[in-house]
Amino acid sequence: MKIGLIGLGSAGSQLARVLHRKHLGLQAIFSRDAQKVEKEGKRMRIFYTNELAKLPVDLDLYILAVPDGAITEVAAQLAGVIEGGSVVHVSGSQPSTVLAPYFESYGVFYPLQTMSKGRRVQFRDVPILIEAKEERLRQRLLDLGRAISDHVYFVDDEKRAWLHIAAVMVNNFTNHLYVLAEKLTKSQDLPFDLLRPLILETAQKVQKIDPKKAQTGPAARGDQETIRRHLKKLENYPDLLKVYQVLSESLVDSGE
Amino acid sequence: MKIGLIGLGSAGSQLARVLHRKHLGLQAIFSRDAQKVEKEGKRMRIFYTNELAKLPVDLDLYILAVPDGAITEVAAQLAGVIEGGSVVHVSGSQPSTVLAPYFESYGVFYPLQTMSKGRRVQFRDVPILIEAKEERLRQRLLDLGRAISDHVYFVDDEKRAWLHIAAVMVNNFTNHLYVLAEKLTKSQDLPFDLLRPLILETAQKVQKIDPKKAQTGPAARGDQETIRRHLKKLENYPDLLKVYQVLSESLVDSGE
Repeated sequence: MKIGLIGLGSAGSQLARVLHRKHLGLQAIFSRDAQKVEKEGKRMRIFYTNELAKLPVDLDLYILAVPDGAITEVAAQLAGVIEGGSVVHVSGSQPSTVLAPYFESYGVFYPLQTMSKGRRVQFRDVPILIEAKEERLRQRLLDLGRAISDHVYFVDDEKRAWLHIAAVMVNNFTNHLYVLAEKLTKSQDLPFDLLRPLILETAQKVQKIDPKKAQTGPAARGDQETIRRHLKKLENYPDLLKVYQVLSESLVDSGE
Repeated sequence: MKIGLIGLGSAGSQLARVLHRKHLGLQAIFSRDAQKVEKEGKRMRIFYTNELAKLPVDLDLYILAVPDGAITEVAAQLAGVIEGGSVVHVSGSQPSTVLAPYFESYGVFYPLQTMSKGRRVQFRDVPILIEAKEERLRQRLLDLGRAISDHVYFVDDEKRAWLHIAAVMVNNFTNHLYVLAEKLTKSQDLPFDLLRPLILETAQKVQKIDPKKAQTGPAARGDQETIRRHLKKLENYPDLLKVYQVLSESLVDSGE
């Protein structure tokens, strides 16, 4: 299968790297960033361009690894360039159908993982969620997914949208709690390092245990006195106060 | 040093185990649970009792591993039993001074980690936060701490209380987000397993990176359209909706 990858942000770079390393047919990459695409293209010794119109027109699969807000715009441009082939995006929150006006064969290839620059993703453990109406594309995406991951699933647009919300909760919001905790430790001139083992153990625990069973702490114990004392201490940190309040209440209500 | 441990809950059991395994002088254990204390006492071949009054009176250090709400009550009883020796509790949120009315030599020995039954804590990586006014006790707690962990710090009552709030954030609240995410996946008949690699990577990322730099996702990108769409989908889940709303706002405001 001949593959073109469009976009070299966090997700695009990681996908390009794994497709290339595993010899899965990556033949062309595009990025608006001329320097970046040249560097990557030369490193991988494949075709690269920063002009969409110059992409090879006869590839089997085009992967749109562009920001959610740019998908339709890039899809519209790409439709004027290519002569056939399937097109997928890699977004968790956008339905596959945003591509329907532009291509006959379209779908989604969503790696459910957080990707940051400078941190290599181990794709083998990353769930890859696939959506495609067309049978041949379904099979191709399944083969491609399995070539890089042990966890490939067909998940429709609706369910993937729910999963994306859940992903935001366990990743973005969780990371935000780390940010708030770092703010607290800094304000007390304490090293954030003190919290790192706790952060890791919290995540490791639920790799096997059910999160409800893993819960500990004042709210889980119904220890209202400690909660009150914490809220009192946070009076001068209105943003932390609100987060503490809402999450404690939610935790108590859920009866963990 | 001759040590007595009072309480065999999650923290107490783990402490008893590590003190015993490392031959650090654990000579007696107490729990109200007669069966549990007998089982552990026999296993370790040390003195055990479910009556506080029967504890050896001449130990060097008594460790109170009881729930926060029970510390003063147990301390008052213990004061009528023992003839000297130092007493510490293991609480993150209680000041050392709650022990002051009962003992001349008192302090805190707080392992900053989440402890659940059936999961063995690797103490070597767990920060241990010590507080003690008396010089001899300070030194003894420092030696004891270093015997089980590579990260021992003197942290006063006030700072420890702040750290405990931060610990609640990165552990209890984070775990609660896992619970909410599990609720979502279940409601959509999707396996929670899909989220486990993301949960782990989120925690692993900040073992080295600053959490602000690790942030990704719609709120961090200022992607208001996705946030609006998520809020709309959560309309029938009022508890999730509130948590999503408050954390998104907090995340956007913090400018991650």
